[in-house]
Amino acid sequence: MFNSKRARMETFSDGVMAIAITLLALEIKVPHLQSTNLADSFRELIPLLPNIFTFILSFITIAIFWVNHHQLTQHLEHVGRRIVWVNMAFLLFQSLIPFATGAVSENPHNPLAVLTYSLILFGGSVSFTSLRLCIHPKGKLGGWRLYRGLVGPTVYFLAALIALVSVQSSYALLAIPPLFYFLPREPQKLESFE
Amino acid sequence: MFNSKRARMETFSDGVMAIAITLLALEIKVPHLQSTNLADSFRELIPLLPNIFTFILSFITIAIFWVNHHQLTQHLEHVGRRIVWVNMAFLLFQSLIPFATGAVSENPHNPLAVLTYSLILFGGSVSFTSLRLCIHPKGKLGGWRLYRGLVGPTVYFLAALIALVSVQSSYALLAIPPLFYFLPREPQKLESFE
Amino acid sequence: MFNSKRARMETFSDGVMAIAITLLALEIKVPHLQSTNLADSFRELIPLLPNIFTFILSFITIAIFWVNHHQLTQHLEHVGRRIVWVNMAFLLFQSLIPFATGAVSENPHNPLAVLTYSLILFGGSVSFTSLRLCIHPKGKLGGWRLYRGLVGPTVYFLAALIALVSVQSSYALLAIPPLFYFLPREPQKLESFE
Amino acid sequence: MFNSKRARMETFSDGVMAIAITLLALEIKVPHLQSTNLADSFRELIPLLPNIFTFILSFITIAIFWVNHHQLTQHLEHVGRRIVWVNMAFLLFQSLIPFATGAVSENPHNPLAVLTYSLILFGGSVSFTSLRLCIHPKGKLGGWRLYRGLVGPTVYFLAALIALVSVQSSYALLAIPPLFYFLPREPQKLESFE
Repeated sequence: MFNSKRARMETFSDGVMAIAITLLALEIKVPHLQSTNLADSFRELIPLLPNIFTFILSFITIAIFWVNHHQLTQHLEHVGRRIVWVNMAFLLFQSLIPFATGAVSENPHNPLAVLTYSLILFGGSVSFTSLRLCIHPKGKLGGWRLYRGLVGPTVYFLAALIALVSVQSSYALLAIPPLFYFLPREPQKLESFE
Repeated sequence: MFNSKRARMETFSDGVMAIAITLLALEIKVPHLQSTNLADSFRELIPLLPNIFTFILSFITIAIFWVNHHQLTQHLEHVGRRIVWVNMAFLLFQSLIPFATGAVSENPHNPLAVLTYSLILFGGSVSFTSLRLCIHPKGKLGGWRLYRGLVGPTVYFLAALIALVSVQSSYALLAIPPLFYFLPREPQKLESFE
Repeated sequence: MFNSKRARMETFSDGVMAIAITLLALEIKVPHLQSTNLADSFRELIPLLPNIFTFILSFITIAIFWVNHHQLTQHLEHVGRRIVWVNMAFLLFQSLIPFATGAVSENPHNPLAVLTYSLILFGGSVSFTSLRLCIHPKGKLGGWRLYRGLVGPTVYFLAALIALVSVQSSYALLAIPPLFYFLPREPQKLESFE
Repeated sequence: MFNSKRARMETFSDGVMAIAITLLALEIKVPHLQSTNLADSFRELIPLLPNIFTFILSFITIAIFWVNHHQLTQHLEHVGRRIVWVNMAFLLFQSLIPFATGAVSENPHNPLAVLTYSLILFGGSVSFTSLRLCIHPKGKLGGWRLYRGLVGPTVYFLAALIALVSVQSSYALLAIPPLFYFLPREPQKLESFE
């Protein structure tokens, strides 16, 4: 059955996430290159390297959120008040990711910028896990799926804490959820993309 | 039946509202932090506090508009000329919310900025109430629903007037509709999300 | 039947037009007001008046394009190569409207800016009329509908020419298609929204 | 059957591509014209010419990608993990096209800017060809279609290499895929728009 309420929640969520993921590339500021010599131009691009790293990290992070969201709402039958608002909290953090990416690109060595970035991803993964708990009937979420849902929040929380001590370690932690996501799974899961 | 006219009006409205809500975060301008010391960085962020407050206020306001719009168009059977244009007026004010949010973020203590912000939300809630009157058959809107539909316009109009006297009181008023929205309701309404 | 090809062309067109119409408001640049006095703040806003005028004009213009596009694709049964590309030309001009609005807002008294704005609207209405001719089977387009389809291109072309002589007359012409659109029609047309 | 998984992948892809194509026009920076004289204003616009050329080139390039994507997903029956992620790689490059367009507009004579632009289009066409190989069952892709799928990657790779020697030759190469696309085809293909 064509579920109009669910369809609109999906359209709106797809819209917000599509805009957020597309705005990321605007945070790699286009430089005005002084030199037309290739080697010198490359040297002028070196300050852009952190922007490119955080762009790719944020792109993959939003992409994973979208794939998981997409997979989750498949199981959604009744769109009630609570689900709509937990989803809104999730979208709030998605819409903040371009801002957080800009903050880290502008201040790559500043602990407060990395702390902000980590906390926004923490908010995103906590609200996604809440959404999963709202949608999935109890009992269906046992086992490894439940544990996997805790990886994101835990890692992002640690990344926020560690940013206060070492910005580099915090970046290393932030790269874990994407790497974890692309780890090989049990063969029977390969066709599913959650 | 898959109603193509209604579906396209919903897609377009979802698009405008998704873009407006995602652009809000860009109005929190990313600062270039001078210090890498945590305490000093925090101090540099203090001027961003009004931006963060208005960001959250505007995000929740657009989210409530979207949820109500979503709920309302469920009942829409025939998309006529009048409904399309009242909906356009509604979208006009939605598209102005990021601009108004930027105006208040840039000039948090200026009465004219707060007046503009309040008037744009006033326009949004008046056009939404008009849309509701166009869609719902007469008689169905009696009782508490009708009164609730007048809360938004009244509060935003008062906020605009009071901005001329006290900007702080105006902000307090602007926070009322979201708080009112999340008040507990009669139990039978809890599953619906209007 | 759910027509997937047509649905995707509509989704993409709705996306482009929703983004274009929402970006318009960003061209009203948020000013940093020097004064907190109400009368002085109003005076600081006077230079924004042309921005607000062109914002409203462009918003209504895109809205009319969207409503007509929406109405037109109702009749679309087969999405072929020619229709897709005429539609793309139409979207090219839609995506240029925020740029043209910005050009006129920044240079309200410059004939070249008004010329550019008029030519972009001219391109939009010519491509829309072409799309109408591609979609409607011959013979169905006789009478007043055909004449109405020529109003837009003619007025925008004249506005472009007249911009070279008098910018004010050009603005007056640009406001004609929206006014014409909202003129009362024959009673049997009131429910349709073309 | 209404395929919800495919529909959401299409909605999200349409969203990203609609935003990318609409943001292109923002990279033609609106100038503040010093003169109100027509001839002088034209002269002030001369530096915008490369921006307009790359805007049109990028618009047509994204439009062709969209049309081909649209045509391809028609054949999509099962949305698996691999297809979703190859599609994400495709969208990554689409979202980078406005950035690359901005880089070339800002530095039209810089070899590194043209190299970057070419490599991003190369990435787009390689990921699109991969998506085509994932979706089409083997054997169906023989003959001219397979060869045509290699035109894009080859030309963009050559354009990247040649940018190091001559920026002008690189621009000429970048214009080939659109021209090739609009070449007349066998008559039986005219109605299809791949």
